[in-house]
Amino acid sequence: MNRRDGRTADMLRPVEIIPNTNAFAEGSCIIKCGATMVYITASVEDRVPPHVAEGCGWVTAEYNMLPRANRTRSRRDVSKLKLSGRSAEIQRLIGRSLRSAVDMEKLGPHCITVDCDVLQGDGGTRTASVTGGWVALKLACRKLLEAGLIDEDPVIHQVAAVSAGLVEEEALLDLQYYEDSGAQVDLNCVMNERGELIEIQGTGEGRAFTVLEQQRLVSLCQKGIQELMVKQTCALTGGAE
Amino acid sequence: MNRRDGRTADMLRPVEIIPNTNAFAEGSCIIKCGATMVYITASVEDRVPPHVAEGCGWVTAEYNMLPRANRTRSRRDVSKLKLSGRSAEIQRLIGRSLRSAVDMEKLGPHCITVDCDVLQGDGGTRTASVTGGWVALKLACRKLLEAGLIDEDPVIHQVAAVSAGLVEEEALLDLQYYEDSGAQVDLNCVMNERGELIEIQGTGEGRAFTVLEQQRLVSLCQKGIQELMVKQTCALTGGAE
Amino acid sequence: MNRRDGRTADMLRPVEIIPNTNAFAEGSCIIKCGATMVYITASVEDRVPPHVAEGCGWVTAEYNMLPRANRTRSRRDVSKLKLSGRSAEIQRLIGRSLRSAVDMEKLGPHCITVDCDVLQGDGGTRTASVTGGWVALKLACRKLLEAGLIDEDPVIHQVAAVSAGLVEEEALLDLQYYEDSGAQVDLNCVMNERGELIEIQGTGEGRAFTVLEQQRLVSLCQKGIQELMVKQTCALTGGAE
Amino acid sequence: MNRRDGRTADMLRPVEIIPNTNAFAEGSCIIKCGATMVYITASVEDRVPPHVAEGCGWVTAEYNMLPRANRTRSRRDVSKLKLSGRSAEIQRLIGRSLRSAVDMEKLGPHCITVDCDVLQGDGGTRTASVTGGWVALKLACRKLLEAGLIDEDPVIHQVAAVSAGLVEEEALLDLQYYEDSGAQVDLNCVMNERGELIEIQGTGEGRAFTVLEQQRLVSLCQKGIQELMVKQTCALTGGAE
Amino acid sequence: MNRRDGRTADMLRPVEIIPNTNAFAEGSCIIKCGATMVYITASVEDRVPPHVAEGCGWVTAEYNMLPRANRTRSRRDVSKLKLSGRSAEIQRLIGRSLRSAVDMEKLGPHCITVDCDVLQGDGGTRTASVTGGWVALKLACRKLLEAGLIDEDPVIHQVAAVSAGLVEEEALLDLQYYEDSGAQVDLNCVMNERGELIEIQGTGEGRAFTVLEQQRLVSLCQKGIQELMVKQTCALTGGAE
Amino acid sequence: MNRRDGRTADMLRPVEIIPNTNAFAEGSCIIKCGATMVYITASVEDRVPPHVAEGCGWVTAEYNMLPRANRTRSRRDVSKLKLSGRSAEIQRLIGRSLRSAVDMEKLGPHCITVDCDVLQGDGGTRTASVTGGWVALKLACRKLLEAGLIDEDPVIHQVAAVSAGLVEEEALLDLQYYEDSGAQVDLNCVMNERGELIEIQGTGEGRAFTVLEQQRLVSLCQKGIQELMVKQTCALTGGAE
Repeated sequence: MNRRDGRTADMLRPVEIIPNTNAFAEGSCIIKCGATMVYITASVEDRVPPHVAEGCGWVTAEYNMLPRANRTRSRRDVSKLKLSGRSAEIQRLIGRSLRSAVDMEKLGPHCITVDCDVLQGDGGTRTASVTGGWVALKLACRKLLEAGLIDEDPVIHQVAAVSAGLVEEEALLDLQYYEDSGAQVDLNCVMNERGELIEIQGTGEGRAFTVLEQQRLVSLCQKGIQELMVKQTCALTGGAE
Repeated sequence: MNRRDGRTADMLRPVEIIPNTNAFAEGSCIIKCGATMVYITASVEDRVPPHVAEGCGWVTAEYNMLPRANRTRSRRDVSKLKLSGRSAEIQRLIGRSLRSAVDMEKLGPHCITVDCDVLQGDGGTRTASVTGGWVALKLACRKLLEAGLIDEDPVIHQVAAVSAGLVEEEALLDLQYYEDSGAQVDLNCVMNERGELIEIQGTGEGRAFTVLEQQRLVSLCQKGIQELMVKQTCALTGGAE
Repeated sequence: MNRRDGRTADMLRPVEIIPNTNAFAEGSCIIKCGATMVYITASVEDRVPPHVAEGCGWVTAEYNMLPRANRTRSRRDVSKLKLSGRSAEIQRLIGRSLRSAVDMEKLGPHCITVDCDVLQGDGGTRTASVTGGWVALKLACRKLLEAGLIDEDPVIHQVAAVSAGLVEEEALLDLQYYEDSGAQVDLNCVMNERGELIEIQGTGEGRAFTVLEQQRLVSLCQKGIQELMVKQTCALTGGAE
Repeated sequence: MNRRDGRTADMLRPVEIIPNTNAFAEGSCIIKCGATMVYITASVEDRVPPHVAEGCGWVTAEYNMLPRANRTRSRRDVSKLKLSGRSAEIQRLIGRSLRSAVDMEKLGPHCITVDCDVLQGDGGTRTASVTGGWVALKLACRKLLEAGLIDEDPVIHQVAAVSAGLVEEEALLDLQYYEDSGAQVDLNCVMNERGELIEIQGTGEGRAFTVLEQQRLVSLCQKGIQELMVKQTCALTGGAE
Repeated sequence: MNRRDGRTADMLRPVEIIPNTNAFAEGSCIIKCGATMVYITASVEDRVPPHVAEGCGWVTAEYNMLPRANRTRSRRDVSKLKLSGRSAEIQRLIGRSLRSAVDMEKLGPHCITVDCDVLQGDGGTRTASVTGGWVALKLACRKLLEAGLIDEDPVIHQVAAVSAGLVEEEALLDLQYYEDSGAQVDLNCVMNERGELIEIQGTGEGRAFTVLEQQRLVSLCQKGIQELMVKQTCALTGGAE
Repeated sequence: MNRRDGRTADMLRPVEIIPNTNAFAEGSCIIKCGATMVYITASVEDRVPPHVAEGCGWVTAEYNMLPRANRTRSRRDVSKLKLSGRSAEIQRLIGRSLRSAVDMEKLGPHCITVDCDVLQGDGGTRTASVTGGWVALKLACRKLLEAGLIDEDPVIHQVAAVSAGLVEEEALLDLQYYEDSGAQVDLNCVMNERGELIEIQGTGEGRAFTVLEQQRLVSLCQKGIQELMVKQTCALTGGAE
């Protein structure tokens, strides 16, 4: 199968992670994966939610699409007085993924909120949010360290995410919108630096899929995530002053 | 590891599916998996949502926990004026899973809403909702067939779901609450009658998990789902008048 | 007039009260009055609302119809972001009725919330909720007593409720849906064990009614409530382990 | 018992009904019962709710307390994003009461909304709203008649309402706030011009009440309502230009 | 241009300010400007919002139109679950204007909420709310002084407001509805007793306006506000017992 | 007075308008005024709101601050289930301002929604939204023209906006956050290409201001707006492909 943008089946779209894009947030970046573009800030606050153990920190995420992130304009959630079910589902995924990267004791009594606002969506906005969200989180923790507010870096794992899917019976990495909307199977993986899974979410939209097919898609993701982690590391190295 | 209720690692909890528990709904059942108990109705309406293709049908789901489904009472969503993020996430999963079982053209221009109200929750409420939801959906379609409103059974696949998880490094099938809340990894599978995946959702709550561990958990689910499908079939056979 | 189910004018529908139907709630029951079926839990919490006098307890109620409790499916309140006016009106009635049964000083600083979720509605759901709600409340207080958390039973009155109405000029006890929807006059009484009124709510839907007619309906209710109290007592005696 | 304002047990507070207080509404009045003061408008619209039979009309009511209607300021419902349960209960009562006065076929396809905004509340706001609401409704129908939009007056009954209660074991008519808040029993009656009941709502706040006591309170209300109807008629006669 | 009510271009509509119209509020009035009529209460509470400096007071305002304040009935904000944008904008203006009149240190730790409920709207409801709101605020502070709760009058400025506009190229003072809805330019001024501006809000609805035209409109407002301040003073002098 | 960034009293901050920043929207730009940065899209839809005259078009605006646009993180409006009053006020201003630039008949039956999402706020976000919003609007209309969907450019005026204020008794143009928050008077002007006013909004936060002072501030704005219009024109010329 020929992909519209000429990629081979196991290629990522061009990825760009621009760090420190917000003057106020403790950590921030813009992540671009092809035409998908997410504006991310990580904000540190000194109080944690009530369910958090004494002395520990917390990480949470919020996800939102700007009204014209898509091909047609969508109404804002606030005008409907409810968070869309899709946004609720996605921001829970991002929050769980980023928490898996952090030692909450080392984070001390700080809460970091990672806001992911999709400026432009062309498929893969949730995985881009995880990948970019980790960079913003890391930058925020670096600032806490530099300010002497914490003693050790609480980010003990590197975390990134990507999707893969079956399109016309072929396994493809990093689906963009036109592929995603026609995919038979769509699978998102969040992994750490050892290639271990943190989250896996797969859906047979068009047909069910075998365990073997599922494994093939996970392998594709594993390859893509390795490459994304190089991009993350570059952003953290090159983007720092 | 010894499970509190004496089960082996690959055993389901006792399952009971009581069909036709609601006098008005086209399809209904109560499903009990151990102490988990979900009240399910499938309601047929003659109009479909605007996005559905001309002449086709639709299946959707709603999920709700009654205030005292849990060990402590929770406030109703309506008193908070918002559907909880967790409920939103779960009802989207149930809806996608049940839609995969149905040929929407055969369903004609009918919309079936499957309401899953958890009377008692002891782990596995979302997978019980899928398993019981399929029974209610099947019963509703049977009624449509008997009434001559559709010509062929639109339920072209059998669908059931179960969870498995890593608890103290051991892979266990069908986690109940005390296991689930302490699980390192929690994975839900929705499968069809051929053992193919429809949905897979895995989360490393306590630690990341290897691809091999993930495959082990999928195998456990596959075994459990086969047994659940026998229960579904019994309910449909024995429960009919 | 012949009633569809063969009852005489002053007969109740078959009543069944199944106690202890929820494993977690301090008190619970299912009450069935004909085809009407309400799932009730009484939950004890240790804090009381701010308006309650120091050292006293409180009793409150919430009422909700499941989406397919009726002949056609209704949208959930949460999807409309508002509690229906009808539910608001009914849960205030249930709350006032149950509070009249309780000595708030003896209840100590506990708040009991009685949740009435209608699984199936065939007329008389609000009165069934009061009658069953009293059983759940009594069971919850019994548990508090057994646990030594209170010294004396705070339930100092027995409370039950029933409706009566004028249908085709005839006074009938305990209207079911098809009677209720065609009733000229509909009257609900909540009474205590001495046959005294706690709440009376009468509405002339089809026509106004004389004071004499009103008295006739109250007498019918008085008779029905005596019988319901026998059922309540049975449930409390037989249902206890 | 001596009432603070020197009334005998069966006396109403001074009542004043000022018609045509709003320049735009088809019908309007201000009703004062002692210090209770309600601003009422009846608005005619040309479309009826979907549940209304072809060619028929409809009457509905909305009830609201202004923030400083009471001794202390209350937050507006809109700031809490929900109609208070109390307002919901009351506006349903007003709507049912006023509908009982109207022949919906004669009202043709018009919907009349009666808005009752309490400027000052000193007990009896719901019954004052019914009594004044009927005057506004009558005025609106008169305007429809004068404009030739309907052929016959659809207001076929006169409707008014008042409360009575047991205070320190004595039956008193038309409770004002300080009596109401200390009442043992509080009962509201809505009646028509023949002294027949349209609505009866009684609550034993402090203690249960016997059927005999209930009858005594209804008799008091009957007397008060006769006097209120004289006031209504005066307002309609004197207030017209 | 001839104005419908015979006013010259620089004349106000007849203004009436009736003080002490609410028995419970610390300050209150009804203000009528032609057919515009606003019911205003000023309520004192003993706690201030969290952002207020220790020991200081606060003044805030809420603005609401009753459903039939206008030529056609509007739905209540609560039924739409949101404060209208227009109301939000207006109540912020009223709040800022009234705060400019007050020395917050002298107000001590009291919060005064000025509620402006429009009974009838015929143009100029926001400026009438400011003008009448100041009277209610002054009365409330007088009550605080008389009760010895504060030592000095915190109302250190007199504040009033009016609109002017360009209608058919002519500058007119105090637009009523039929003028306002056809105005090319509409400008509201809030001023103090020295003729200084506190707020200015001008909008070119039909066309842009020159700086010179803007100055002409401000002059008209200045003249009108002087006259309104005489009315305010009368209301405070004559209206007190 | 020395301004922190070395500007003279009548200097704008550095302005940058980057056009075509969104791949899907018919018009878009990012506008930067110093550290203030707003992401703007103009979306064309084929239906207009019901109040619009047959055959005419409409322009509306929405304004939103991203959670970390400010020095501290703010909760999203959707989590509070209400649009903030401030956002409501601002988006009404932007909408009115942009509508003044457009001939609605020439816009034909299209509705253009201008979404202004503040990525970073350092004072002047509402005026930057107007200035940038006009560019996005112009670009969207250009696309409509190029696509032959309209015959003539409906943008008949150029519109831009800026603020000025009194800070420590000195009149300064284009306040940034630290100046704005300490300003005695804050005034926003929206003007067209002829230097005529479309909107003027001035507030005496710290003290009242004379008519003369107001005129001085308007003059400053006039100067700044001329410079902003050069930037707008550059963006439209240079930014087009």
